Amino acid sequence: MFIDEKGIEVPVVDLDMLAGEHKSPNYLKKNPLGQVPALELDDGTTISESLVICRYLDEAYGEPFLFGNSEKERGVIALWERRAELGLFIPSIEYGHHTLPQMSEYFDQFPDWAESLLSGIETSLARVNERFSQNKFLAGNSFSIADITGFLGVQYAEMIVGLKLPAASPGAEWVDRVFRRKGARSFHTAKVLTEDFLDDGRQTESND
Amino acid sequence: MFIDEKGIEVPVVDLDMLAGEHKSPNYLKKNPLGQVPALELDDGTTISESLVICRYLDEAYGEPFLFGNSEKERGVIALWERRAELGLFIPSIEYGHHTLPQMSEYFDQFPDWAESLLSGIETSLARVNERFSQNKFLAGNSFSIADITGFLGVQYAEMIVGLKLPAASPGAEWVDRVFRRKGARSFHTAKVLTEDFLDDGRQTESND
Repeated sequence: MFIDEKGIEVPVVDLDMLAGEHKSPNYLKKNPLGQVPALELDDGTTISESLVICRYLDEAYGEPFLFGNSEKERGVIALWERRAELGLFIPSIEYGHHTLPQMSEYFDQFPDWAESLLSGIETSLARVNERFSQNKFLAGNSFSIADITGFLGVQYAEMIVGLKLPAASPGAEWVDRVFRRKGARSFHTAKVLTEDFLDDGRQTESND
Repeated sequence: MFIDEKGIEVPVVDLDMLAGEHKSPNYLKKNPLGQVPALELDDGTTISESLVICRYLDEAYGEPFLFGNSEKERGVIALWERRAELGLFIPSIEYGHHTLPQMSEYFDQFPDWAESLLSGIETSLARVNERFSQNKFLAGNSFSIADITGFLGVQYAEMIVGLKLPAASPGAEWVDRVFRRKGARSFHTAKVLTEDFLDDGRQTESND
């Protein structure tokens, strides 16, 4: 989403993660922790962690600045990005890790703990929704990285956790606005893959 | 620690959190989520979240830049800051929330889930330690925000979780180097308060 919104092209190497290509000696030489994605700079330095990569690209490629144009804007955007990440994105993903049957081979699952995350996710959804009574976008009147994390957080809360913004609310209208942007193109593919993955698990569960 | 390392002065208003002053109408007007710390800018905008506040101050006050001097430096520093945060700082704090008896009134505790964090914290400590076989500081050869988060993460892993870097290891030497810096002054107070708090809990437990 970030690269599409930024309107830039970054050479991409696809890794076959199911075949463990992100743990191959060649990749680990570049990125010892085997994390995906990673960005290799011209001098061979490798940066990982999506948010860190996006921030680097934002600076390196110039306008539009999705992390903000001034100190104050950067502060307010970083604040809302972090709230969306800690309040929606991370807990929704954790909820999936600890409750989906198809995740049980990758994680020691603690579903009771995962259920304890629900009230925090609900509170964050309500806060995000309230935010759009005054603002067009999450951190103010321009689209920013906060909208990307927030949008993904809201999507995963709905798809994985089953918690959603009220229909026709200011938040739901913002989701529609983001969906119509060029940045959402790559999300459509991710959404279909995620839904297929979730459906597989539900089928496995009902066949048990 | 950040303000001392930066060598700046920021007007501070202390809040009596035990008396709930961070939930008073006056404070909530400035910062609706009632989070501490918060930074009020000259125009009345309020920013919260420690890392977001530090990043803002770093830009606003100029050198020394604890988030880095170039795009590449900022990328590498942000990467190690995030690894320290997600791998050491946050899981150590979460471990405390879910296992300390004196935290049971604030959190629904899931101690089994907390125990599952231990192997990740151990791995992160080993990675941090390994990092100092080549580097003087966590993100390279200059002190940065990554060292602040990393240092606090290592301290909390030791105090709260009971996991520590091996004695006389490169990582233990780095901890000593950070302890001798002016930035560690404020940590000494925090350390005593934390140890008192932890001792109280242990005493409560043994009196049960």
